[in-house]
Amino acid sequence: MAKYEQLAEQLATQIKQGVWQPGEKLPSLRKQSAMTGFSLMTVLHAYQLLESQGMLCARERSGYRVADAIETTGNTGVMQSAESVSVNDFVFDVLQASRDPHMFSLGFAYPDPSLYPRQHLTKSLSAAARQTTVTSALDNLPPGNQALRQLIAQRYAARGVNISPEEIVITAGALEALSLSLQVVTQPGDWVLIESPAFYGAMQALERLGLRAITVEVSPDRRLNLAAVERALQSKPVKACWLMSAFQNPVGVSLSTEDKQALAELFDKYQVALVEDDVYAELYAGKQPLLPLKHYCQHGNSLLCSSFSKSLVAGFRIGWIAAGQHAKAIQKQQLLSTISTSVPVQLALVDYLETKNYEKHLHQLRRTLARRKCDMFEYLKTHWSSFATVHHVPGGYFLWVEFAPQVDTLAIYHLALKLRITLAPGKLFSLNGEYSHCLRVNASFELTPARRQLLEKLTTRIQLYLAQF
Amino acid sequence: MAKYEQLAEQLATQIKQGVWQPGEKLPSLRKQSAMTGFSLMTVLHAYQLLESQGMLCARERSGYRVADAIETTGNTGVMQSAESVSVNDFVFDVLQASRDPHMFSLGFAYPDPSLYPRQHLTKSLSAAARQTTVTSALDNLPPGNQALRQLIAQRYAARGVNISPEEIVITAGALEALSLSLQVVTQPGDWVLIESPAFYGAMQALERLGLRAITVEVSPDRRLNLAAVERALQSKPVKACWLMSAFQNPVGVSLSTEDKQALAELFDKYQVALVEDDVYAELYAGKQPLLPLKHYCQHGNSLLCSSFSKSLVAGFRIGWIAAGQHAKAIQKQQLLSTISTSVPVQLALVDYLETKNYEKHLHQLRRTLARRKCDMFEYLKTHWSSFATVHHVPGGYFLWVEFAPQVDTLAIYHLALKLRITLAPGKLFSLNGEYSHCLRVNASFELTPARRQLLEKLTTRIQLYLAQF
Repeated sequence: MAKYEQLAEQLATQIKQGVWQPGEKLPSLRKQSAMTGFSLMTVLHAYQLLESQGMLCARERSGYRVADAIETTGNTGVMQSAESVSVNDFVFDVLQASRDPHMFSLGFAYPDPSLYPRQHLTKSLSAAARQTTVTSALDNLPPGNQALRQLIAQRYAARGVNISPEEIVITAGALEALSLSLQVVTQPGDWVLIESPAFYGAMQALERLGLRAITVEVSPDRRLNLAAVERALQSKPVKACWLMSAFQNPVGVSLSTEDKQALAELFDKYQVALVEDDVYAELYAGKQPLLPLKHYCQHGNSLLCSSFSKSLVAGFRIGWIAAGQHAKAIQKQQLLSTISTSVPVQLALVDYLETKNYEKHLHQLRRTLARRKCDMFEYLKTHWSSFATVHHVPGGYFLWVEFAPQVDTLAIYHLALKLRITLAPGKLFSLNGEYSHCLRVNASFELTPARRQLLEKLTTRIQLYLAQF
Repeated sequence: MAKYEQLAEQLATQIKQGVWQPGEKLPSLRKQSAMTGFSLMTVLHAYQLLESQGMLCARERSGYRVADAIETTGNTGVMQSAESVSVNDFVFDVLQASRDPHMFSLGFAYPDPSLYPRQHLTKSLSAAARQTTVTSALDNLPPGNQALRQLIAQRYAARGVNISPEEIVITAGALEALSLSLQVVTQPGDWVLIESPAFYGAMQALERLGLRAITVEVSPDRRLNLAAVERALQSKPVKACWLMSAFQNPVGVSLSTEDKQALAELFDKYQVALVEDDVYAELYAGKQPLLPLKHYCQHGNSLLCSSFSKSLVAGFRIGWIAAGQHAKAIQKQQLLSTISTSVPVQLALVDYLETKNYEKHLHQLRRTLARRKCDMFEYLKTHWSSFATVHHVPGGYFLWVEFAPQVDTLAIYHLALKLRITLAPGKLFSLNGEYSHCLRVNASFELTPARRQLLEKLTTRIQLYLAQF
């Protein structure tokens, strides 16, 4: 094969793979020649060959462009619908599906992104861009930006929770925070107490770190059975407990003050480290925030993890750990995973939090979420109560729906998908395939007339599906 | 204890912990009362008590501020100097020490941060801030921003390396890229072939993932002994090979084209997955870039990892994987670690890469690094050659220095630290404590007269230390 044919074949592959999109300009002859090492003449012949094959168009004085009609392999964007999919596949599919602007994302883990204060954050990002200096990247190494850590500590202080900026480590979102926390308080093979149902991220992290799980049931009514917790701690040498004390994902319930005190005592008695996932903390419904379980733990072996993803902005990927005595160990662990978090977004958050707009935004967000959650609850209660129980507790934006035990919500998930609705089936939140008759519903989206219509269709399809039992 | 005394004690603790810094304003009486639930009167009494204790100052019409003379527990910023420290402790200390603007960071893994094009990046960040939309966070979910992936693929295409945008996954830096890659091609207990000496991140990742390492020596002269590679592949069922084909960290050498072809054939023959760390690829010294080893691997089971951290900006924490057939598995694995990378920095990189400034910057960067590396090499050759061998190969910014076998460079590391110079001792790059007589020197910093003076002092101290042998 001649050299120009070789190059043409290479370029043709690139065009088919989408490296060069239809209509896009290819590098100039001179540039292509400099980069690939082929002579100018070889490049010209290759371009001419591709032009003769209809893959390129030559335009007067503007070089060669990819023809408009070329088909690329591109994104398919279609979801799998096999009956047996892993939790991870599910989460992946639900996240990917949420990219579709026409999808009604009731399975989404984040609140409606239109609730984030985009304009204020844009201003703060621009301000942060202007503030970066030669050494910013170094100032923001673990444990993270000093001013940001202080602002976070001040927010805790305002609620009476004593957390020093020195124990705070900034992470790439809450999931990294939780996974690093688990790593510093456990060794592979250790037992970890988790809730059931639980956030799938917790179960996946346990699996990935070679940890063994012992579960305690979460009930929509009374939350945690303390006697069951103590039995679990007696039955296994539990090293750590991962839980959400506020607006638990997926059920939505929170621990009472008394239960938090009692749990803290149990953890102290059995020397169990606490890894607390507090990402919904800011989304309380009443006037007063809930205090984290860490606040009640006197023994110091507790790590409080949170982020801005659910309350301010999902795309920044900034979380933190109030790590107590483990702060230094966490930073060292971070050097093995992501090294540090992005500098500009840390600076942007400092700028935003200093403007005091956050309180106003949170106030508005809490009101909107509370209203939308009530609307969704009313809708489901009215239309679904003949075949399902809808649990509603104030705060956050999740509703937990229970069908009859023989119903498989995976089937409902697939029904919904055909209507461009995602749902989070209960199995996602289970270690042993339990909760297959449950659904978590994201109630953060406005119930517009179009969405109500879509829900009506879904209701009809569910009823048809249930008629078979 | 009265309520106001309780609150005062809480606030005093917060002040000592640095939540409120000297001179900083405390929340107003009304705000403090609203947040803590104490009455206005209780808050006032608490503030007055702290004022009487000298911890707060009341200022006319501007509320209460923390007194200026309060001592906080603060950052100590002092490095440990115990003789036995783990690799991780070292890396942590060297990174933390680099924050000190007076430190001469010869142990630093990144190039001199003043070489990054800060002003252009600032503009791009501001532009990105203006571009974010409600759905940006969704558009940038795994595999990452489509335009960014295409721009990266185009850079490869320009060198004749065929990589489709569809196989590229954006990650939180190269280290996450490498660790995710290892995870998808291995199971705990598997054998992985690595170089010796090797990037410590590789060894740490292997340890964290429960993988077993088999090593092949890297020589400053001929790089890899292919017969030794084949013997290793024959002796163990090696699943993957992690290596750097260009400007290997720490030794600085690169694989020849012939060695890359031969290695690719070996990996094909023994069905070994390639995890290639290509972070220094852009820092070549001549006119032509080096082609990655992946380019020669026809079997498709190869993952090419890189980032912008060494060539454009360290603080963005954006890397990528050209993952071939593993692209989807990588994205699913990402949902278990960081979910996705920060949206604004992805958008900023797209903006920057589209401006074409990157080529100009790289051109300048390569020239500066080549000059500085030569300067440092000349200095060390002149002053150290009586007691050490300094290896110099073109490209990148590392020099590899070998002392006599009985010398422990850990001692030299500590000598240097007292002069505010960091160094990277050879042990950092070894699985079995080898290379304890070697040093990696970062040659990316300008050799100013002040730095030359400092190096002279270091040389004298090293000579004194070596006199004992």
